[in-house]
Amino acid sequence: MDHDQLSSTFAALADPTRRAILSRLSTGEASVTELAEPFDMSLPAVTKHLKVLQRAGLVIQGREAQWRPCRLQAKPMRDAAQWMEPYRRHWEQRLDRLEDYLRESGRETATKGARRPRNGRLK
Amino acid sequence: MDHDQLSSTFAALADPTRRAILSRLSTGEASVTELAEPFDMSLPAVTKHLKVLQRAGLVIQGREAQWRPCRLQAKPMRDAAQWMEPYRRHWEQRLDRLEDYLRESGRETATKGARRPRNGRLK
Repeated sequence: MDHDQLSSTFAALADPTRRAILSRLSTGEASVTELAEPFDMSLPAVTKHLKVLQRAGLVIQGREAQWRPCRLQAKPMRDAAQWMEPYRRHWEQRLDRLEDYLRESGRETATKGARRPRNGRLK
Repeated sequence: MDHDQLSSTFAALADPTRRAILSRLSTGEASVTELAEPFDMSLPAVTKHLKVLQRAGLVIQGREAQWRPCRLQAKPMRDAAQWMEPYRRHWEQRLDRLEDYLRESGRETATKGARRPRNGRLK
């Protein structure tokens, strides 16, 4: 995996507007004007964010005259998620330890979402 | 989920040295000197990267006198991975479509890793 590609992907994701654009594109392709609508931003400002996403390969823009829809590209995000995968073991272990601690403290209900009714009876 | 926290996490991950530091810490805690060893970098340069990781909450540094070990923190990475989760559906669909395409092109073997022997017989 190319480290610079990963750095570009993570840098592109490090902005709430760019993440919102990706979120919108995950529901289907959209023109730049459509992408700009929900934001209180000028078209050039949105275009600037789009260019960062395009350089990172997260978005491609079609070449159809006039409309030129933007489309999500899956691969860079998948590579970033794959990079994170080994750390999943780490946070799952941490959660297991937290659960053990809560169980030992006699607070199983807090981790399982079950609550004993007020009258103290369970069917 | 705090958007600024997510931006800090992704920005911290957007650097190969910082990712390498996290990778080292995923195997166990380490002092700043130990973290600096594999890199052709000065201690202050490594410390600067560590500060970015600490501000993003990805690493904490112990308060034990002298040694002050650095330790990986799971939560910000887990939040970032959770943010990516809805996109998984997108890239898995893309891979499914690619697989369908390859199957239709009569190239199933390329996706499954099985190869028909040269003599054309399968046991």
